Amino acid sequence: MRVGIIGANGYSGIELIRLLHEHPHVTLNLIVSHSTSGTPITELYPHLQAIYEEQLEALDVDKVASQVDFLFFATPARVSKDWLPSFTQKGIPCIDISGDFRLNNPDVYKQWYQAEHTNAEYLSEAVYGLADVYPEAIKHAQVIANPGCYATAALLALIPLVEKKLISTKSIIIDGKSGVSGAGRKPSLTTLFGEVNENVKAYRLGKHQHIPEMEQILTEVSGDTVQVTFSTHLIPMTRGIMCTIYADLQETITTDDLIHAYDMYYDHTPFIRVRPEGSLPSTKEVYGSNYCDLGVTVDKRTGKLTIVSVIDNVVKGASGQAVQNMNLVNGWDIDEGLKYSPVYP
Amino acid sequence: MRVGIIGANGYSGIELIRLLHEHPHVTLNLIVSHSTSGTPITELYPHLQAIYEEQLEALDVDKVASQVDFLFFATPARVSKDWLPSFTQKGIPCIDISGDFRLNNPDVYKQWYQAEHTNAEYLSEAVYGLADVYPEAIKHAQVIANPGCYATAALLALIPLVEKKLISTKSIIIDGKSGVSGAGRKPSLTTLFGEVNENVKAYRLGKHQHIPEMEQILTEVSGDTVQVTFSTHLIPMTRGIMCTIYADLQETITTDDLIHAYDMYYDHTPFIRVRPEGSLPSTKEVYGSNYCDLGVTVDKRTGKLTIVSVIDNVVKGASGQAVQNMNLVNGWDIDEGLKYSPVYP
Amino acid sequence: MRVGIIGANGYSGIELIRLLHEHPHVTLNLIVSHSTSGTPITELYPHLQAIYEEQLEALDVDKVASQVDFLFFATPARVSKDWLPSFTQKGIPCIDISGDFRLNNPDVYKQWYQAEHTNAEYLSEAVYGLADVYPEAIKHAQVIANPGCYATAALLALIPLVEKKLISTKSIIIDGKSGVSGAGRKPSLTTLFGEVNENVKAYRLGKHQHIPEMEQILTEVSGDTVQVTFSTHLIPMTRGIMCTIYADLQETITTDDLIHAYDMYYDHTPFIRVRPEGSLPSTKEVYGSNYCDLGVTVDKRTGKLTIVSVIDNVVKGASGQAVQNMNLVNGWDIDEGLKYSPVYP
Amino acid sequence: MRVGIIGANGYSGIELIRLLHEHPHVTLNLIVSHSTSGTPITELYPHLQAIYEEQLEALDVDKVASQVDFLFFATPARVSKDWLPSFTQKGIPCIDISGDFRLNNPDVYKQWYQAEHTNAEYLSEAVYGLADVYPEAIKHAQVIANPGCYATAALLALIPLVEKKLISTKSIIIDGKSGVSGAGRKPSLTTLFGEVNENVKAYRLGKHQHIPEMEQILTEVSGDTVQVTFSTHLIPMTRGIMCTIYADLQETITTDDLIHAYDMYYDHTPFIRVRPEGSLPSTKEVYGSNYCDLGVTVDKRTGKLTIVSVIDNVVKGASGQAVQNMNLVNGWDIDEGLKYSPVYP
Repeated sequence: MRVGIIGANGYSGIELIRLLHEHPHVTLNLIVSHSTSGTPITELYPHLQAIYEEQLEALDVDKVASQVDFLFFATPARVSKDWLPSFTQKGIPCIDISGDFRLNNPDVYKQWYQAEHTNAEYLSEAVYGLADVYPEAIKHAQVIANPGCYATAALLALIPLVEKKLISTKSIIIDGKSGVSGAGRKPSLTTLFGEVNENVKAYRLGKHQHIPEMEQILTEVSGDTVQVTFSTHLIPMTRGIMCTIYADLQETITTDDLIHAYDMYYDHTPFIRVRPEGSLPSTKEVYGSNYCDLGVTVDKRTGKLTIVSVIDNVVKGASGQAVQNMNLVNGWDIDEGLKYSPVYP
Repeated sequence: MRVGIIGANGYSGIELIRLLHEHPHVTLNLIVSHSTSGTPITELYPHLQAIYEEQLEALDVDKVASQVDFLFFATPARVSKDWLPSFTQKGIPCIDISGDFRLNNPDVYKQWYQAEHTNAEYLSEAVYGLADVYPEAIKHAQVIANPGCYATAALLALIPLVEKKLISTKSIIIDGKSGVSGAGRKPSLTTLFGEVNENVKAYRLGKHQHIPEMEQILTEVSGDTVQVTFSTHLIPMTRGIMCTIYADLQETITTDDLIHAYDMYYDHTPFIRVRPEGSLPSTKEVYGSNYCDLGVTVDKRTGKLTIVSVIDNVVKGASGQAVQNMNLVNGWDIDEGLKYSPVYP
Repeated sequence: MRVGIIGANGYSGIELIRLLHEHPHVTLNLIVSHSTSGTPITELYPHLQAIYEEQLEALDVDKVASQVDFLFFATPARVSKDWLPSFTQKGIPCIDISGDFRLNNPDVYKQWYQAEHTNAEYLSEAVYGLADVYPEAIKHAQVIANPGCYATAALLALIPLVEKKLISTKSIIIDGKSGVSGAGRKPSLTTLFGEVNENVKAYRLGKHQHIPEMEQILTEVSGDTVQVTFSTHLIPMTRGIMCTIYADLQETITTDDLIHAYDMYYDHTPFIRVRPEGSLPSTKEVYGSNYCDLGVTVDKRTGKLTIVSVIDNVVKGASGQAVQNMNLVNGWDIDEGLKYSPVYP
Repeated sequence: MRVGIIGANGYSGIELIRLLHEHPHVTLNLIVSHSTSGTPITELYPHLQAIYEEQLEALDVDKVASQVDFLFFATPARVSKDWLPSFTQKGIPCIDISGDFRLNNPDVYKQWYQAEHTNAEYLSEAVYGLADVYPEAIKHAQVIANPGCYATAALLALIPLVEKKLISTKSIIIDGKSGVSGAGRKPSLTTLFGEVNENVKAYRLGKHQHIPEMEQILTEVSGDTVQVTFSTHLIPMTRGIMCTIYADLQETITTDDLIHAYDMYYDHTPFIRVRPEGSLPSTKEVYGSNYCDLGVTVDKRTGKLTIVSVIDNVVKGASGQAVQNMNLVNGWDIDEGLKYSPVYP
């Protein structure tokens, strides 16, 4: 199958190249970038020498459509909404790694993304690509909205418990910690080494655009109107997201019961690993891989539940989950091209 | 004034040397270390060459008592409880940077420190050395229990609000993030560079020994029996602690009101800096200094309060606060020897 | 083919597990560790959960011999010399990632490794496993001495030029810079995060045990008695080695000629990538992969040659090259199980 | 004395604020920035809250001249050459931290800085501000060209040996390793955290603009025409420069003799610390301080000399040395305002 990437020169795009290059069922036929078209990708990323040396192309809808059977958008926010429908109209399934098709409600999109959605009629058609939770819906989708990185880590931890009514949906607090790659490769003051190294910085408290997609899904799953308290922190590492999640338990339940509930819920997927009681995952333990690792602990003193969820934001939080979604759409094994062990140390 | 340091070969001890060396009113007359006595400090810490080159001495109570007028304990947990009273009995005021004299109740000590307190009768005499909150009590103390690093960051953020009943004491969640220096200089697997770099790791959820001192103080301040949910995370940096604190507001109040409340409460000290609305502090902004910087935000959507509190764990969270306490006991200006600007970047 | 790893609980061992687990022609049948036998590997390395969960075994020669057809030693220096011959005597080919079988001369071994070689008669039998230079010899070897990490980076850069007499063998200076993983996972003061972070440290100038193997090979290749000036530096990163190499040119030659000479020399292997003129490789560009990337520049002003050589010390500098050697011995494609793109960023 | 800083919003400027704020003999009366005039410095650098909160001003020569008695230029290359003479003409001594007044020969300036020098007649007037080597000349200077960071580290190591003819001036190779702060705070791809972290990168081999100032000084000191081979590497840390220097000895001499030679040469300054035989300095051992630490070793096997020189590039390599120069010009103690111990860890 011939695949293409729109927005191939960012970190998500480049990770797609790494994953697709080794995927047994696809050929990466086209890489597109508006800002750097005409440049060989190896000029921007010398690590691809002798691996993938093609030139970035301009975005010409007809030309792209003639060259690919499947398309990934790894573009910044507010780009794919204008372009993606042109391709699905031509019968090319698309996975959008940006946030443009995640929210059902165009008003909510406008509020959190500060832009009018130009193709709002496609929002209802798009399937939220949380691949380990919605495999069946994804199999039949033409537009897949790949979830946000923080949302992936948080929702994979919360959905099984919310669905089973084990926690109070009024009490959810998510403390997110992310490596810097999530901010992309565009030069900016806040992502300079001199500013990030030996530093931890809280940012966009209560204002992060992954909030509405978390609330939308948790509301659907629970039947309640869920609001979450969500804060994000930039920490001095490149890859990795940890969400530390606090919630009140609805009933007396042990840590062991919770581990069992997760194991049941994620029985069908190899990508969710639940740590045994007393053990908590760290981000390095999923580095470079498509795993989401979960650890859970009930504080017997206070009765509060704490969940630790970790992913590699560039893999499970972006390009790896996108490949998993492509596998689902095409009926391939869900771990095809994703059998990478974490790189440790 | 002649001062000495017991346990001078750890990171807190070495930071005391940095601070005391420049302090205008003291002479560092003696450095003691059980494990490395007989070694010149420059052999362990070459950065002290030409600055302070003395030899570490063994712990001989009479000899120490004859050489110093004031004593710091920078020892690991469960050491000072056996030795400190010998010195106060001889009239030498002591500041203990370890946790041995922070808890009023020896049973609580035993529960959290896994050891019998051998000098429990001194617990009631000890003053909790949260220098920006209890300056008057500290002035008259002979035994000062310097607060824990996490406890310092969390309590300086919480006390003004708890005292004014602005937040529900049932709702406090503290998500702590720390650099690695807090774990000391003893070689261990968990603090190796290869394990910490490119990693964030949650540890001791609900079990950290700073929990009881936070609860003891918040209970005293509020009159309620306070329990906190507290989690700790190791992040890949050397210095710095951030506590992100979540709580329910007791009444409708604006971010601006909260900033004003802090400014009033900390009017008397130069070491607490409250960020203007919309700005949140990061740990690098206090690096190497004795500041605690606070940022606060009310999430209008959810009504939840989030506070961000940052300190340099080695300065305000240990040796800097100890020097501030020494200044108080001796009637010197509280910022004497502590006028360091943060080192940035 | 059934393979085993002796010393599987160190960083080289764990990287072998990552690589062998995905290798199409082998089954990892046995992992051995003297110090941690009886422990499930996932207890030491939770990132292997659901990937490889076996228990570390004690070293029992007969038992091991009955379970494997091929053996890797990932042991510390001075271990394999005592054990490896027992296995080759039983017809099991062995690859030794440690330095015990790299030097032809037992006196030189004793001088640099501070130990008598207990099986010196095997030194002449061992083949130096610099896989991209000596593929033919390796194909027929029973004992393969996998090169040192620094030696790999330096020799791959130097051999083509020394063989062609392009540089003066009297003038070679190698400035090595390494990430911390090369020092292994054993807790030690010098590899603590607090000591390594925000630091660069020179160590063992002129005394590193990779010096004699570099000199042995360069002497063989050139016919001259070669001595090198070699210094090593620990820098704050986990993986990666860079050798910056300085030498006098024997004749006037351009950068372009040198690039061409490398391309010719390494025509047969996919693992050496030479950067185009004006471009120099960085360690991140080979992260997690088996590549050695080379950049070369002739300083027109001074006539001096500078070469920059980078590898991932854990892959090409240890376990990846060992797998490449295994492929050679067994007649498989040399990149089997090694087709990993660098993980970037 | 009233001082001002032109270019106060970069890392060198901000470090000058840290140092000058605590200096007993000066008042920082004015901070100027072309690009950010009108902005309070705390908006760009919140760590200065409650320490120094002034607004950055535009560059108006008359206004500046009326407000200051002494001026620092912390501007990017090619700026001070156009502005500095206006101030010295008005009798205001200036220290230029940029490279505009370091080279005697305007043609050499043009070659390495790619710009015509617009005030070439001032080049001969400027004194090279290597404060620990040229204190007497600096005392009488009106224009002080503060040395480059790499040049400071290399020259402090080389001058004593070159002056005494202990090393061959034809053989000098300098391998420089720098933290990222040297590249300034301007957003750029190469200084993003995602590109620098877990990476070491060689850059500008043989082309760095500190080469001509090193050669100019070494030529003056030795009487020979000296050319150096110089390479620079970006390593993942914020502060610190190490130069590892290789040279051939002119005569048989021991490591101990060399240490003695340094000690004699730097007898008059507290800022050069020479490590005892067998010990080599690391950059963290000078962090935040004005020290230059030297370690030296003679390789008995090869007869080659290796010197390791470390500085904090922002202090001794820029703003600290500038303050030392200010002290010299004004006849104050050379360590006034510079008595900072290194911040460790």
